[in-house]
Parts: sequence; C-alpha cells; structure tokens
Amino acid sequence: MGLEIYFKFILSFALILLAARLGGEVAERYLKQPAVLGELLAGIIISPFALGGLIGDPIILNFATIPNPFGLEGEFHVMEIISEIAVVVLLFVAGVETDVRSFLRYGLAGSAVAFGGLVLPFAFGFLATMLLAPDVGMTGWLFIGATLTATSIGLTVRILMDMGQLLTPEGTTILVGAVIDDIIGIVILSAVIFMARTGGAINVLQIIKVFAIGFAVWFALLIIGVRFRKYISKILLNPFKRSGTMPIVAIIIGFIIAYLVTLVNLHPVVGAYVAGLMFAATAEKGEIAEKARPIMLFLAPFFFAYLGMQVDVRLLATPMAAILAVVLIVLAIVGKVVGSAIPAKFVGKLSNSRAMIVGIGMVPRGEVGLIIAGAGFLAGAINRDLFGAAVAVSIVTTLVTPTMLKPFLKRTPAKS
Amino acid sequence: MGLEIYFKFILSFALILLAARLGGEVAERYLKQPAVLGELLAGIIISPFALGGLIGDPIILNFATIPNPFGLEGEFHVMEIISEIAVVVLLFVAGVETDVRSFLRYGLAGSAVAFGGLVLPFAFGFLATMLLAPDVGMTGWLFIGATLTATSIGLTVRILMDMGQLLTPEGTTILVGAVIDDIIGIVILSAVIFMARTGGAINVLQIIKVFAIGFAVWFALLIIGVRFRKYISKILLNPFKRSGTMPIVAIIIGFIIAYLVTLVNLHPVVGAYVAGLMFAATAEKGEIAEKARPIMLFLAPFFFAYLGMQVDVRLLATPMAAILAVVLIVLAIVGKVVGSAIPAKFVGKLSNSRAMIVGIGMVPRGEVGLIIAGAGFLAGAINRDLFGAAVAVSIVTTLVTPTMLKPFLKRTPAKS
Repeated sequence: MGLEIYFKFILSFALILLAARLGGEVAERYLKQPAVLGELLAGIIISPFALGGLIGDPIILNFATIPNPFGLEGEFHVMEIISEIAVVVLLFVAGVETDVRSFLRYGLAGSAVAFGGLVLPFAFGFLATMLLAPDVGMTGWLFIGATLTATSIGLTVRILMDMGQLLTPEGTTILVGAVIDDIIGIVILSAVIFMARTGGAINVLQIIKVFAIGFAVWFALLIIGVRFRKYISKILLNPFKRSGTMPIVAIIIGFIIAYLVTLVNLHPVVGAYVAGLMFAATAEKGEIAEKARPIMLFLAPFFFAYLGMQVDVRLLATPMAAILAVVLIVLAIVGKVVGSAIPAKFVGKLSNSRAMIVGIGMVPRGEVGLIIAGAGFLAGAINRDLFGAAVAVSIVTTLVTPTMLKPFLKRTPAKS
Repeated sequence: MGLEIYFKFILSFALILLAARLGGEVAERYLKQPAVLGELLAGIIISPFALGGLIGDPIILNFATIPNPFGLEGEFHVMEIISEIAVVVLLFVAGVETDVRSFLRYGLAGSAVAFGGLVLPFAFGFLATMLLAPDVGMTGWLFIGATLTATSIGLTVRILMDMGQLLTPEGTTILVGAVIDDIIGIVILSAVIFMARTGGAINVLQIIKVFAIGFAVWFALLIIGVRFRKYISKILLNPFKRSGTMPIVAIIIGFIIAYLVTLVNLHPVVGAYVAGLMFAATAEKGEIAEKARPIMLFLAPFFFAYLGMQVDVRLLATPMAAILAVVLIVLAIVGKVVGSAIPAKFVGKLSNSRAMIVGIGMVPRGEVGLIIAGAGFLAGAINRDLFGAAVAVSIVTTLVTPTMLKPFLKRTPAKS
C-alpha cells in the first residue's frame, strides 16, 4: 500500500524542523548568535553523513535520493522540493519587508559600498581557489568568488537591531549596501549557474548577456512594481480582500514569478525577492508581510537545516579542506572590510570608525553565502571540499561579526 | 544539472495553489458556496485526466509519479508529500480551534447525534455498495460506509457562522456532534485502512483491537492534554516564547504526534487533530491558532485541489459511476438527516424544527469525506468508479446543505 512511505516523509520533515528549532534556540540563547547559525549546525549534526547515517533509512534524516527519474541525468532528491519552496518563501518575505523608499534614498552610498564589497572578495575568492584548487576549473573558481561576495541582509539587520544601530547613517548604509549586494550577488549566481550548465565554457559575451537579461528582467519587474503599484493592488490583490486570502494570493504570485525568471536563467530566489519588492511598494505591504511571516518562520529553518545536511563533516577534516577554509575565511573578512569601508568613508562621507562599522557590518555571509555555495554544489560546479570550506566561511564570518563590531560601536554613540 | 526539475516542482506547486485559490474565490463569490468546494472543482479541472493531461509533463499539473523507489511496491507520488503535510497542518489547526469546554459540556447530546449520524449512513453505504459493486469486496464496502459517516466540521461551522446560528442550542449540538463524529470517523478510517493493508481479511478481533488501541491512544493524548496542560505549557512551550517561535514548536510537535500515531495504525490526521486539541486546552491556544492559521490557509487548498486531481471525470461519466453516485448521494442525505435528527429530538430535547436543523447540519461530508475516500483510493481499496461517486457525495452533500437549511432556520428564530 505504501502509505508508510509518506508517513516517513512526515517524520523526516518534522525531525529536520525540530533539529533546526532546537539548534536555533541554542544558538540564540547560549551562543548569543543568530538562530540561522544553529539551524545550519543542527543540519550538519543530523546529516546523512553524521547522525542520519546511523539510522540508515533512505528517507528519514536523508535526502530521499532516487536515481534518474523523469529522464533526469543524475539523482533526484525528493526533500529538495520542500527546501526550494522554503527558500522561495524566505526571499519573498525579505523582499516584502524591504523599505523601498530608503532603499532608493541611500542608493549612491549603498551602491558604492556594495560594489567595493563585491569586487575585492570576488577577486580574492577567485584567485585563491585558482591557486589552491586548480582542478575544479573556471566554474568552481567563479562559484567561490560569488560565495565570497554575499552579504546576509537578515543577519546584518538582526545584529544592528540587537545593538540599537539600525537607524544610524552607518546602519542605513549597511542595509542598502546589503540589499544591493544581494541583488548583484544573485545575478552573479545566475550567471555562474548558467556557466556551470554550459560546462564551464568561458564565454564573456554569454556572461554579459546573462547579466544584461538578468538585470533587465529584474529592473523591469522593480519598475513595474513601483510605477504600477496601484494597478497591482487593484487588479491582483483587491479582488481577494473580501475572502481574506489576499496575502496568500501575493505569495502564490511570488512563486509564479520565481519560476518565470528561471526561463531567462535567473535563480528562482531572484524572482521571489523581486516579487516581494513589488508588493513592498503597495499599500498592502503590511498585511502581506504579517501573513507571510509565519509561513516563512515555519519553512525557512528547513532550508538552512537541509543545507547543513549537505556538509560532510569528515571531508571538512581533510588537510585540503582545512587549508581552503582558513584561507577563504581570512580573505572573506579582509576583502569585505576593506572593500566596503573605503567607499563608506569617501562616497558616504562617514568618519573612520563609522566606516569601519559599515565594513564589518557587511562581513556576515549567512544564508546568502550558503544559497550560492549550495547552488554551486547542487550544480556540480564545486566539490565537497570546497563546499565544506564555503560553509565554514558562512559560519565563521557570521560568528565573528558581533565580536568585531562591539569595540567600534562603543566608540561611536548613536546620533539619530 | 537537473535544477530545472526542481523549478518544475515550484511551478506545479504554484499552479495548483493558484487554481485552488481561483476556484475557491469563484465558489465563495458567485456560487455562494464554501471555498473548499471550488478548490476541489479546480483540482478536477486541472487534473492529469483533464487540463493537466494536455500539458503532458510528468511533473507540471501531474503527480510526479515514480515507479518502485525505496523498495516500494507500486508507485510513489512525489506531490503527495506536500499534500500530506498540508492535511496534517489543516487538522492540527482544526484541533487547536476547537473549544474544549463546550466540547465536554454538550458531550451527551452531541455523542447521541454523532452516533445516530454514523450508524445509519454507514449501514446504508455498506449495504448499497455490497449490492451495486459486489466485486470491490469487504474493504471497499467498508470504505464507502466510512465515507458516508463523515461530517465536515469546517463546513458546518462556516454555514452556521454565515447564518448567525453558531451559539444556539442546535448550533452547539451540531458542532459537538460533528467533532465527535469526526473523531469516531477517523478511528473507523484507521480501522478500514488497516483492513485494506491486511488484504481485506475480515478479522473482527483485529478490528476491535484497532478500535481499542486507537481509542486508547486518542483518549490518552486528550487526557494528557487536558490534565497536564500546565506542564505542556511549562516544558514544551514556555522555553520558546522568548525567541517568538513557540507556535512553530507547537506545530512541529503536531507533526511528530501525527507520525507517532501511525505506529499504532492510526492515520496521521488523528494525531494532528489530537495534538491540536491538546494545545487547545493550554493558555497558548490563541497565539498558536493565530500563527498556525496563515500556514494552514497557504497549504490546505493544495490538499483539496490535489485530491480533486485524483478524480477522473471521464470515469464519472460511466453509467455505473453515475448510478452509484445518485444512490449514495440520496442515502448519504437521508441517513444523516434521520440518524441525527432523532437523537437530537429525544436525547437533546430539541423541538422538531431545531432537530431538523441538527440533522441537516450534519449532512455536508466536505473534506472529511474526501480524506476517507482519498485514503481508500490511495490504499487501493476502492476503484475509480467508487472514488468518483464518493467525491460526488462530498460535493453534492456540501452543495445542498445551505439550501436545505434555509426554510428551517426561518421558522426557528435564534434564542441565544
């Protein structure tokens, strides 16, 4: 009858969520770190390469791997579907909660910070991987470069909130920088995934084309969202207000846009984020965010724990992975701090210590680094060694940021 | 690379939700019917046997069927996982929103109504199927009997609310009757599924054992919930209040209990409902319901649309299916009205017209009938003919209830 198979998926789903929640709680309460870090660590602990492997079941605490269905080359991971749904909801909510106005007001300083914080880490990551892991090839080097460009909006916002620095000039600059960084980083991700798909062939024209199409689609969606927000409210949202399902309809539209952007080689999370931004410009923003948030809170930890489950801790213990991890962590921190602090000082006209806060505030890679590294790993562009190192970068950069920020925050009293 | 496969699942998920929402909206607005009916009809329209079949993709608007993975005999339907997750959330929320106090106060009258409304339709359904479809065998007859016993709490509550009759004596009696009916019906479902699993062998001792274990586990969970609600709050919920994830933890516990009850042959929805009832007794009830509701509103329509997708409309057009549908619909309505109205009059001491309201109020089978029929179909106990007829029973009994109720509601002014 096989109903037990579906019950096993219910159990696996529940256990992954439970581990994520416990990990998140421990991280927040005892380690004073963002919950996402604990979710990731919980995933590493329950992974098929650790605890899950002891159960020895193809479904429970495993990926439910099926070889070659749907005419697919390689393996199909059933649980990946829930993970994809979770990350689409996460980025949709991130988009909806973005403040479109200050997003535009602090545009210049934020863009400069984002740009500096992209170029330096990307160059560092690309060159270091080229030297230390020459065998993974161009696509792999690009993926690690892309991973190092990431900035986690969620984590940065959370840290600034906790320290009461969200509304300072440096706080807003970090925020805008992180948002723009995220958008550019996501476009980079799409380009890199496209390269991975075409077998790593270096085709500059093709990359430029992906960038151009990606930006054009992204920009078009944003413009449509901002300019036609009244029509979006009137045509798409208002009809569903009477039945109370308006926020649900907004999320469904987010999923459809998430899929549509994949047709121009963008990653679904770009579409989800832009769809969110589109609704962030409407009068319905508040209600959509309020109802989408519980869904995100329920599903997002699954994404992070599932991502952690991909890390084979034993492989992280190889000398190569350890060397890669240490080098990339140092470069990731130095690259972001230098690359972001200099534009913050000269374009954003901030004092030295405020510029340092911006630089350090851009350091945590968090979920964005994991998304990029995870996509690279899924696409087969980076091996487990590099994926482990990239996850270590995401973990360590996230861990050290609050400690690095504290001395500068003391020297700079909030003047808002 | 195969990432496109996962994107296809995102699309399919979004399209099913979109169809469900549009169907729900049309049902509520233009047909003045519960949204669930439109979701189900939308599922029938987009099913692989109708619109979805025209797309001809194994994933998009299809079940994503994979033969024999995980050492499974028969087929594995990937999208079924999301459907199972959705129905667990639905029954969990139904449990949390139950008023445990009036549940206990109106116990006797409600139990009598539920009992009468169970015995007659069960006997009718069993005997009619035995005569009209002798080849499906004992398990199939039992499944149809079980399907006819169902009462949809959600639908009944919604209709009573819309007509302002929720707090009348007959309203409360219907509510308690529907709840108890649901619990017994769910235990019957578990027993029938167990029979289907053992190849339809008639083993009365075994059925009694399943009933006994099922009731014992269900009762134990309820007692633990009511008696130890302070400890549940203190140990399971309080630790997660600071991080704001308390409701999420409650839902995760719901999923774990949903799985655990399957170990004693109960269906996961029993566990989900009882877990919900357990939290309904705690002080945290309100907050859990508030945060779980958006998740349910997002996912539950997927369950109904996916269930509708199982119906092959072409098979419903066969003379046999049509005859079965008509006979079962008539028996379902007569059985419930007579079986519930008589105890409402004599045990509940209601006037004739109030007793008729109770009888008619128990008629809609809605999602509960669909769950039972769907489980029977998944378990292979009933064929597509009978499944189509059972779905027709759920649709028609739901459709006719508001119209049947109206004349009696006018004659009985609400005296609360």
